[in-house]
Amino acid sequence: MSELTIWTLDWVPPGPRGFVRDLRLRWACEEAGLPYTIRTVAFDDRETNHLSQQPFGQVPFLQDEKLHLFESGAGLLHLARKSEKLMPRDQAGEAATIQWTIAALNSIEMATVPWWFLKISGDKDNKLTGWVGKRLDHMERVLGEQEWLAGGRFTVADLLMADVLRIPDVRAVANRPATEAYVTRVTGRAAFMKAHADQMAHFEAGDRKRAAKAPD
Amino acid sequence: MSELTIWTLDWVPPGPRGFVRDLRLRWACEEAGLPYTIRTVAFDDRETNHLSQQPFGQVPFLQDEKLHLFESGAGLLHLARKSEKLMPRDQAGEAATIQWTIAALNSIEMATVPWWFLKISGDKDNKLTGWVGKRLDHMERVLGEQEWLAGGRFTVADLLMADVLRIPDVRAVANRPATEAYVTRVTGRAAFMKAHADQMAHFEAGDRKRAAKAPD
Repeated sequence: MSELTIWTLDWVPPGPRGFVRDLRLRWACEEAGLPYTIRTVAFDDRETNHLSQQPFGQVPFLQDEKLHLFESGAGLLHLARKSEKLMPRDQAGEAATIQWTIAALNSIEMATVPWWFLKISGDKDNKLTGWVGKRLDHMERVLGEQEWLAGGRFTVADLLMADVLRIPDVRAVANRPATEAYVTRVTGRAAFMKAHADQMAHFEAGDRKRAAKAPD
Repeated sequence: MSELTIWTLDWVPPGPRGFVRDLRLRWACEEAGLPYTIRTVAFDDRETNHLSQQPFGQVPFLQDEKLHLFESGAGLLHLARKSEKLMPRDQAGEAATIQWTIAALNSIEMATVPWWFLKISGDKDNKLTGWVGKRLDHMERVLGEQEWLAGGRFTVADLLMADVLRIPDVRAVANRPATEAYVTRVTGRAAFMKAHADQMAHFEAGDRKRAAKAPD
């Protein structure tokens, strides 16, 4: 079996813990039973210290032997190719999984991330609020009609969509019954809880290393 | 050969002509030499009249025999599976193509579309401007080092990235030498010019049909 390495930061402040996107790749590996190693780049100077590995200075990125992939969505689709637990193998099921993976990134997250950014920048009621609400209304209708997004079963598209929708500010505004039940159901999976606990422990270990290195 | 159908609107106002995203799928089909038919849903009541075909009320969507796909990015990846002209067949080239396709959608367009939306809503200097600038600086560095995004050749990732960057407001703010040369080069391809001209002609035909139906 190939050796998978998920790269993330060595430390982040408490706020983003549990939400750094290496969690998406950890979660997918846990669902699929794919073994993986965690490696890190430094939080300090993160905007420039790993541009050769991730051209936007972000995490995560994924190594699979000689392959080196950034964009969590691309990493998820790569892992989905390795395990049927993440994506059906029939053409229709695979196409639907890719479609909903991209919908999570480009129809939902494209609205929610900048909306959230404006919100935490002080524009609580900002001009993206209406757009976000419409997109979430559409998702509510879809999730009221079907339990899973693709192929009638859990796929990597659900993993990603639930990860986009579970951000606390988004979850509060997405608070519609079918959507809330979906987020609760998908994030109740053992693989999510393991990945989440592992990420929290990883950054707590980062606290200890930083404390040990800090000047008196 | 399978029958491809690209669905778009029957008419749009002059502003978005040349930018409606069916152009992405037309362009990919033109690059690949894949025959396709154009079908339409009505512009009037577009927010609700085709939700059974596109859950966010948008266009385009793509039909390939029994397959029915929304999200232009998913449509592009589907077409790329059908033609090596759109994506290399080796694992590294394919993975890089998928990675940069998703980067166009989730690292660039996720910043530029909401920025543009705020700009046309009257917030010319808005809080997303700094974010957009950083992402475009990163792209400029990448495009200063390589002619194409994936596999050392034109792929569907270049088609999509150039389509994201060529939006006039974005192109004006993205005005960095390597990026501008890239957009000029990619949109100078014959397949783009054919797809663009065909979309313009399609909406002009829509003008005539609307005029014929309009009450006196």
